Amino acid sequence: MKLKVKDMDIATGGPLVVILNEDDAIKFDIHHMDRVKVKKGKKIDTVVAAIATSARTVPKGSIGMYEEVLKSLKLKPKDKVSIILARKPLSIEFIKKKLDGRRLNKREIDQIVWDITHNKLSNSELTYFVAACYTNIMSARETIILTKAMARHGDTLKLDRHPVIDKHSIGGIPGNRTTMVLVPIIAAAGLAIPKTSSRSITSPAGTADTMEVLAKISFPIKKMKQIVMKYNGCIVWGGSLNLAPADDKIINVERTLGIDAESQLLASIMAKKHSVSSTHIIIDIPAGSNSKVSSRAEALRLKKNFEEIGKKLRKHVKVIITDGSQPIGNGIGPALEARDVLWLLRRDLRRPLDLEKKCIILATETLKLANIKSPREKVLEILNSGRAYNKMKEIIKAQQGKVFNPDKIKIGNFKYNVRSSRNGIVRKISNSIISKIARIAGAPANKGAGIYLFKHVNNKVKKGEKLFAIYAESKVKINFVKEALKIGNGFVVK
Amino acid sequence: MKLKVKDMDIATGGPLVVILNEDDAIKFDIHHMDRVKVKKGKKIDTVVAAIATSARTVPKGSIGMYEEVLKSLKLKPKDKVSIILARKPLSIEFIKKKLDGRRLNKREIDQIVWDITHNKLSNSELTYFVAACYTNIMSARETIILTKAMARHGDTLKLDRHPVIDKHSIGGIPGNRTTMVLVPIIAAAGLAIPKTSSRSITSPAGTADTMEVLAKISFPIKKMKQIVMKYNGCIVWGGSLNLAPADDKIINVERTLGIDAESQLLASIMAKKHSVSSTHIIIDIPAGSNSKVSSRAEALRLKKNFEEIGKKLRKHVKVIITDGSQPIGNGIGPALEARDVLWLLRRDLRRPLDLEKKCIILATETLKLANIKSPREKVLEILNSGRAYNKMKEIIKAQQGKVFNPDKIKIGNFKYNVRSSRNGIVRKISNSIISKIARIAGAPANKGAGIYLFKHVNNKVKKGEKLFAIYAESKVKINFVKEALKIGNGFVVK
Repeated sequence: MKLKVKDMDIATGGPLVVILNEDDAIKFDIHHMDRVKVKKGKKIDTVVAAIATSARTVPKGSIGMYEEVLKSLKLKPKDKVSIILARKPLSIEFIKKKLDGRRLNKREIDQIVWDITHNKLSNSELTYFVAACYTNIMSARETIILTKAMARHGDTLKLDRHPVIDKHSIGGIPGNRTTMVLVPIIAAAGLAIPKTSSRSITSPAGTADTMEVLAKISFPIKKMKQIVMKYNGCIVWGGSLNLAPADDKIINVERTLGIDAESQLLASIMAKKHSVSSTHIIIDIPAGSNSKVSSRAEALRLKKNFEEIGKKLRKHVKVIITDGSQPIGNGIGPALEARDVLWLLRRDLRRPLDLEKKCIILATETLKLANIKSPREKVLEILNSGRAYNKMKEIIKAQQGKVFNPDKIKIGNFKYNVRSSRNGIVRKISNSIISKIARIAGAPANKGAGIYLFKHVNNKVKKGEKLFAIYAESKVKINFVKEALKIGNGFVVK
Repeated sequence: MKLKVKDMDIATGGPLVVILNEDDAIKFDIHHMDRVKVKKGKKIDTVVAAIATSARTVPKGSIGMYEEVLKSLKLKPKDKVSIILARKPLSIEFIKKKLDGRRLNKREIDQIVWDITHNKLSNSELTYFVAACYTNIMSARETIILTKAMARHGDTLKLDRHPVIDKHSIGGIPGNRTTMVLVPIIAAAGLAIPKTSSRSITSPAGTADTMEVLAKISFPIKKMKQIVMKYNGCIVWGGSLNLAPADDKIINVERTLGIDAESQLLASIMAKKHSVSSTHIIIDIPAGSNSKVSSRAEALRLKKNFEEIGKKLRKHVKVIITDGSQPIGNGIGPALEARDVLWLLRRDLRRPLDLEKKCIILATETLKLANIKSPREKVLEILNSGRAYNKMKEIIKAQQGKVFNPDKIKIGNFKYNVRSSRNGIVRKISNSIISKIARIAGAPANKGAGIYLFKHVNNKVKKGEKLFAIYAESKVKINFVKEALKIGNGFVVK
């Protein structure tokens, strides 16, 4: 029997779903969440069927389609399609197996990742997989297989270069824009560093948001390759590429419950690195009671696991545990962080020295990992000679940007200073409260919004002295911030 | 800020979901699957927010609403509502706790069940809960708490009677329509039996589908109570009542992966019984390689668990393990099974003796459980005197039905006989193949469709003799069946 396509005008954001009228579903003996094969000419795709609860949604003889299915089958409204009942995806059995606490082999994990990548699983099925891997922790072997499978079922970047450098910071520390300093240093040292970064999800700025202040960040993978082949480095948004797409879908489901399966975290980070063929990877784990990794013991365990998985993937991995107890750099928010970065690269006196110090350590360790002699001297020379800044200019130009002068970066017009209510020493700065205030001010959506810190931990401060300034792009946002500040400003002065 | 309501014209089938335009979401700092409070006048409700991927779906300044939200907040298209970011439901933390392998207490389980009942959890969150209870098996204590919570957060039937009888059969055996024989016997014996039954999901007929051939099955709980107070018994569709609604939602999610958490199964069955205040419950577990409970050992374990939970709920529970190796009764499909039942109650010579024998055993055990003297004699007297049939007539009338004569039941007009290809003895009949054939013939949606068995296991059969007849309401369906029969008819004759 033929059904007439009805465009539901909604995207599911992933899973391929069609909606059947209840009477048609009974006729075909199709149940809610059964799989059906939808056929139009020679095109055929297996999708999940939902049953409409009212004929108003999908009339008898019609088939409601979400955007993903219309796109996948290249269908238009009123097209006629035929449907037949299909088997469940193979991976359902394997997910059940993992949920039962058994180990999965290569073929099984590969099938699951394929089905995730191609939107063959419903949200509920994908959730079962994530829950299974969370409660029945994946072995190192399973994690490796998962990592490779996620990378393979996506685009990959092959570079005819060696070594290929990559870098990752575990997030959660406001400021901390090391990537944008590290990439030009490494590239200026003559090494390839095809860096992909993410946008912020819950922080005031991701590296991608910050780079976007200076240049374009979305490129097809071919163009990214050209830039790296010519200039050694790039800083592009990973979301514009199709690297390990299964990973993004898994992360979305994890976020639902706020769980962070460690095996999943490892696989997630390493899959993206594997996709761009990195050979040498530097990983920065900021640890501190105030950050994502809350203790040194936890950081050491994570370090060990990163090194183990790196070894099995035949990559040189160096993990550095850094101080995650307070924000790093002065600017927080895309424009303010971009300005810090350019000040730093231009050796401007206003540059944040804590960020500089950290970047020099990371860059030195990176060159050391790649067997470059006198790495620290080299890093200092590249930075102080202006070669790092020149490389950054090249990269910004290659990424179709025009902003090279930090003082031309537009910061929010509305400003509010937060001052100390007493004399003393700054004992603590809360990463989460500072992030929250910057977000309420409008970051990262309002590029010019955020915070500029005048004080860090251990600095002396007088009563009435400025702790930080808040920038926003509207008066309303400043008022929101003032409201939020009543609960606290994140500083402990004693 | 105010947003304009847009009716998406779709039901989610549960979760309360709204859709925001991407720009508005950024403005409010709301992420996919965050909670928001939607407010219209004094009405306020917390819902899950999805983000539209195109402005075509939800334009800026609008808020897309699924049917459930429109209904819950009594909203019309173009109404203006305000939204603010809300906290996640409390139960998210408790679900995470269970996923981490820890025990849940009464307050925590209660909160989860409340949130499930009121559609406060997304599908993914609910899936996490089901997965958590599956991998980190619930203790007996947790199961009891869950059972009571599911019953409490739904409608309940309070009867001023004692004892209150109930009955449950684990499904999977075609035919096996014991409820419709048992209820009139027990009611005729003077005991209250407020029976709720389900419709078929994957079988050719549920008790509700079969009773619907004779009478109405959807009643408000008040009317159900009146019927039971007057006639001692009823056979109504549980789906028309709001008994333990959280249970139905959990079962839906279990079905996704085809998992059957035993603690969940126990809680599910007992919650429905608890909702109607049953005091004495008879449970029939058909066991056999061919049925849901595949071994006697498994049946015994299940029996023990049912008895334990029954004891803790202060109910008298008797579990009977029966033969689940083949279909029971001759008719399979709503009309054919209803005819079997009425033939049986009217002592017609055409009645199925295997079903009769099983019903007599179940009824006897039920009366024994309720401390009635000479239970077997009493059951036989009620059946043979016609009192059971008269009671069934009363119940049918009370449920606004008019069909009392089995020979007036309309069976499908199209018939096809399946014959033995050899002489021999019937060694095996496959429950699943017989079910499948009956469903392909149109059962349960086509009431008159199904199968009538002429032979059971251990019967002698000659080559060319009829094994069973297939009934359908259209020629097309008969052709479908003929096609399916090429793979096998479910009979092993040797």
